[in-house]
Amino acid sequence: MKHFLTLALLLSLSAANADEGMWLYNQPPRALLRQNHKFDATDAWLEHLQKSSVRFNSGGSGSFVSEEGLLISNHHVGADALQKLSTKEKNYLREGFYARNQRQELKCFDLELNVLESIEDVTPRVNAALPAKADVDTAFAARRKIIAEIEKESLAKTGLRSDVVTLWQGGAYHLYCYKRYTDVRLVFAPEQQIAFFGGDPDNFEFPRYDLDICLFRAYENGKPVKVKHFLRFSPEGVKDGELVFVSGHPGKTSRLLTVAELENIRDQALPFRLGSLKQREVLLSNWSTRSEENARRAKKVLFGIQNSRKAFDGRLAGLLDPELFSSKVRAEDKFKQSLHNSSNSREMGAINAYATIEEATKVLSAQYKRYVMLEEAQAFNCESFQIARALLRAGEEFPKANGDRLREFFDSSKTSLELALFSGKPIYTDLEIVALADSLTFFVAEFGANNALVRKVLAGKSPRERAAELINTTKVRDVKLRKELYEKGAQAVSAAKDPMIELARLVDADARALRTVYDDQNEAKQQAHAAIARSRNALRGTNGYPDATGTLRLSFGVVKGYEENGKQVPALTSIGGIFARSAEMNNESPFNLPGSWEKAKPRLNLQTPFNFVSTCDIIGGNSGSPVVNREGEFVGIIFDGNLQSLPWDYAFSDKQGRATSVSSAAIFESIKNIYGAEALARELMKAPSGK
Amino acid sequence: MKHFLTLALLLSLSAANADEGMWLYNQPPRALLRQNHKFDATDAWLEHLQKSSVRFNSGGSGSFVSEEGLLISNHHVGADALQKLSTKEKNYLREGFYARNQRQELKCFDLELNVLESIEDVTPRVNAALPAKADVDTAFAARRKIIAEIEKESLAKTGLRSDVVTLWQGGAYHLYCYKRYTDVRLVFAPEQQIAFFGGDPDNFEFPRYDLDICLFRAYENGKPVKVKHFLRFSPEGVKDGELVFVSGHPGKTSRLLTVAELENIRDQALPFRLGSLKQREVLLSNWSTRSEENARRAKKVLFGIQNSRKAFDGRLAGLLDPELFSSKVRAEDKFKQSLHNSSNSREMGAINAYATIEEATKVLSAQYKRYVMLEEAQAFNCESFQIARALLRAGEEFPKANGDRLREFFDSSKTSLELALFSGKPIYTDLEIVALADSLTFFVAEFGANNALVRKVLAGKSPRERAAELINTTKVRDVKLRKELYEKGAQAVSAAKDPMIELARLVDADARALRTVYDDQNEAKQQAHAAIARSRNALRGTNGYPDATGTLRLSFGVVKGYEENGKQVPALTSIGGIFARSAEMNNESPFNLPGSWEKAKPRLNLQTPFNFVSTCDIIGGNSGSPVVNREGEFVGIIFDGNLQSLPWDYAFSDKQGRATSVSSAAIFESIKNIYGAEALARELMKAPSGK
Repeated sequence: MKHFLTLALLLSLSAANADEGMWLYNQPPRALLRQNHKFDATDAWLEHLQKSSVRFNSGGSGSFVSEEGLLISNHHVGADALQKLSTKEKNYLREGFYARNQRQELKCFDLELNVLESIEDVTPRVNAALPAKADVDTAFAARRKIIAEIEKESLAKTGLRSDVVTLWQGGAYHLYCYKRYTDVRLVFAPEQQIAFFGGDPDNFEFPRYDLDICLFRAYENGKPVKVKHFLRFSPEGVKDGELVFVSGHPGKTSRLLTVAELENIRDQALPFRLGSLKQREVLLSNWSTRSEENARRAKKVLFGIQNSRKAFDGRLAGLLDPELFSSKVRAEDKFKQSLHNSSNSREMGAINAYATIEEATKVLSAQYKRYVMLEEAQAFNCESFQIARALLRAGEEFPKANGDRLREFFDSSKTSLELALFSGKPIYTDLEIVALADSLTFFVAEFGANNALVRKVLAGKSPRERAAELINTTKVRDVKLRKELYEKGAQAVSAAKDPMIELARLVDADARALRTVYDDQNEAKQQAHAAIARSRNALRGTNGYPDATGTLRLSFGVVKGYEENGKQVPALTSIGGIFARSAEMNNESPFNLPGSWEKAKPRLNLQTPFNFVSTCDIIGGNSGSPVVNREGEFVGIIFDGNLQSLPWDYAFSDKQGRATSVSSAAIFESIKNIYGAEALARELMKAPSGK
Repeated sequence: MKHFLTLALLLSLSAANADEGMWLYNQPPRALLRQNHKFDATDAWLEHLQKSSVRFNSGGSGSFVSEEGLLISNHHVGADALQKLSTKEKNYLREGFYARNQRQELKCFDLELNVLESIEDVTPRVNAALPAKADVDTAFAARRKIIAEIEKESLAKTGLRSDVVTLWQGGAYHLYCYKRYTDVRLVFAPEQQIAFFGGDPDNFEFPRYDLDICLFRAYENGKPVKVKHFLRFSPEGVKDGELVFVSGHPGKTSRLLTVAELENIRDQALPFRLGSLKQREVLLSNWSTRSEENARRAKKVLFGIQNSRKAFDGRLAGLLDPELFSSKVRAEDKFKQSLHNSSNSREMGAINAYATIEEATKVLSAQYKRYVMLEEAQAFNCESFQIARALLRAGEEFPKANGDRLREFFDSSKTSLELALFSGKPIYTDLEIVALADSLTFFVAEFGANNALVRKVLAGKSPRERAAELINTTKVRDVKLRKELYEKGAQAVSAAKDPMIELARLVDADARALRTVYDDQNEAKQQAHAAIARSRNALRGTNGYPDATGTLRLSFGVVKGYEENGKQVPALTSIGGIFARSAEMNNESPFNLPGSWEKAKPRLNLQTPFNFVSTCDIIGGNSGSPVVNREGEFVGIIFDGNLQSLPWDYAFSDKQGRATSVSSAAIFESIKNIYGAEALARELMKAPSGK
């Protein structure tokens, strides 16, 4: 941790007591909380928060807020489910939804939720399985095998979803066991206009006025689940200066990467991703303006692209900020110096680990674009290709021994794989063609039209013609056929001669070869990072937190404004503020208010807190995370970070960076006084039974 | 020509009588017109059309339509002038403008118009000036010198703007002399909503309903000019199947490029340009949504970007169409074979020219991105940098002998250079910062943050900080200071220590070196293309047309619909159609009608032809070109081509490709019955004096 506090200090004048950290639930920051906030995080307090927290496998976080399995997340997390449930006639994503009773609740397509039940450190067992002095290829295979074994064993024993998580970039391996929910129903969503008020222009900005919420209910055996752990809902929300906690699933940070790895992200990965995102944004923005139905079909994907684009622009700006980057360089130099000065040969040896990482980064960098195009399939950017490849590879992988398969085909991954593969969600032919034609064009631009693989893929046609032909003739959008091919296996998949599956086959040798390069080089990097982690622990102690890994973490901080361009930005906005903001922007899209809000204005308490910022350490994936107070009550929900928080991917600073939340007060006020959702309001306020 | 007819035949079933060609006024297609259309293009008819045609040096075409110097072009050509005249309070670009009398006409900033007076073939003189067996560097310098000499001589003799134009990629050099107008005043513009109805989504589509017009008046000595040649305005417009002519300034086509050059455009230049355009489109779209004033400030630039992006996407699709590309390959192979079969040693030698072009293309390709970034200054994409560089280079170039200067500093270019440099047009600090920060980020992404030049440019700051610093501290936006530095020369420019000028200086050695590579390799290509042209003329005759060069050309064709997705698209739309189209799109932007149109609907003749398509051969730069009938009457104005016309950059086909125009009937109807511009309507209908 010290290493990072030092770094934070360089970045921020007020960082001495920085509330930094995405902490592991099995290594919570008790001492820090006691020291900085006089707060005692008891086992019971932690367990309750952990088991009230929910992971959305579509990407995002949430929490239980009633005993009856009611759970809350963001509208933009629920958007995936809302989009899949919507039709031309019923656009829930845009218009919102409210189930007045449980019969009206709508079952979502392929939505999987996870609740973390237990964590076990399996590092010794994972590392013991590696033969001494194995080359990276052998080491990778051995590590994959032991991980598959541990997961399968745990699944058999507990019935829980069991994932071995790589922490500290390879420094530790923990087994996470989750209760899994796959029958999830939509309860309430406001209009997208209010959930995403201010749209892309106000995204990552503050002050904000977004009711970015969506409520679901978890079912089992056709009935709402009774949950033991859920958060008590506070209708008051937070106050300025208050200590708050965030429990959620930050997706990925890069704070422990070496300078060589960060340079590669800055000079290659981020610019390439941004180029591709902007290409797709232009395509879908334009396609969306051609008709209302186009706009509806592309909505969720376009939002995701714009959101990523803005986040990546902010991250790149972070890495191009010499203050941030040079502090990274200085910190690494200093740590290398301390390794060098160490009398311990292991510590001195860790210096070589930096060279190993740099070397592996170079190898990966040389293959980067090919990897993204072929193995990540950005050359074939459509749902049909994803399905076709899954069918092709399922046929090839499942006959292998569990531990020899590609990771997504482990026995422990089967339930999730099938949930996604057999989803009956709508897939739109026109959007598929447009997206595939564009990505094939991008593919040709990157590889050149004379490239042998490009020629094979295009089969003598233009990208547009080829895309139309593939999408119009493939049958993989038929769920029944998918099931049949999946169950019958490789021979049936082959016999089907489906053009999209055959395309997936055509590029699969190349794609798998790239995957092997990636797996091997990442194994080399993991071993090197593990060596660095061991030396860091030896020299600086073990009380830190690893980079985010899409698993449950605890953050804490205070509700607090910040200074921007010489002006103080207050920590909280109010419901009254949205009417002023809308008027200021001439009530024009995306600053126009839904009719429900215009109508309800006279009966609203305009002083009600709406959104607020805090110093809690978050990143993408934390969206929908509950914000709780000392008493563990639900006082808000994370939905964004400000622009200044975007470089948090690489280094935390609370000088200006802030996490942005909807206050529970605004949620309660709007549910009751705008949407007239009385039953929902009652359920939120209901005390746990027996209390 | 035969070469191209063959090619067109491969591309199109109906191309046997294709009305292909952007013909030189001094080599008009008399025989073709007689043969295909029984039309006799007399000298008088041609001279009248030539001298009624106007070039907009901001990019585009137009024509005189009254004896009083009234001239018409597109709204999107006039947009540059409209944007510069607009303020936060008076947004002429959006709201439109009408001067009820000449006193109300608004003088445009830095708008230069040219009317072609004469053409002279100076090829022998240009080629004679080259020393025998000179290397390309010497050849380039000698050619530049003789061109400067010819232009200067002509300017002194005639007082006319004198440009030596390179035709046939180097096969011929013609001296074009223009009457120049620099006092141009705005007379009438409709609302942008109707000029660009359907916006980006309908751009390059058909059916269309755009009143894409803008009227100006040319002045001299403070009075409207009396012009001898102007087009009589037809209030009836065109009929389906009618023969029509287009007289305008197509900017650039690439039909005579070799396969090696086209491959380079397909695999490198277009993808790179598109990436950069899409990056800027995302930036400015987003910035525009943040406030109405932002949107106003960025409007013209954003339109230009979106227009280019859609055009380039279409061109790339054309080059990725194997039918088009393989026909190019076959045609080149066939021609090479005929060279090979020739008994003439010169023809056989021309085969080497292809290798020379391929070699030069490779050299250019290796430097392409650096050239675009540094010499085209895409790394420093803001007005302030353009001004700073012009001041820097003016100081360095003018002391040199005329023929030794960079071409834009020839004595013959001085008037245009100064008109642009001393323009009092508004430049917005906030937009400048945003644009520069984005392009500096693009620069870093392309070169890498550790690149020595990047480090010097950023001076230890992030792109955002550096952009803000440069824009906030430079003084080049002060016109008075510009004039002073320009007049005092290099020493004063140096003494000013202006940070933006110093940035231009910092990169100038690299930029000039790249310019030299480009000039030399293009000289090599010109010589090779000249050799190919000579052999082509020898083997196939001289009756063709060269690629477009931004100079006056004559096209012809017929008003004609086309088939698309199995349906017939009629050649004409009507005024009634726009109300139906708007309703179909829920009257939502960009398909909403201005109030003036809604109000006028009851008194409009809904049958009036609105837009129409024809088979006339056009390309970007033709926007605003008059469409005339056999009688030479103004019957419409070019404003677009359909999507299928976008590959015309490389090969013409009238199978589906069409030029799109506004009918003069719709212009007359709307001016009279929507805008109540009675005086303007009267002026348009006024016969030439003495008739």
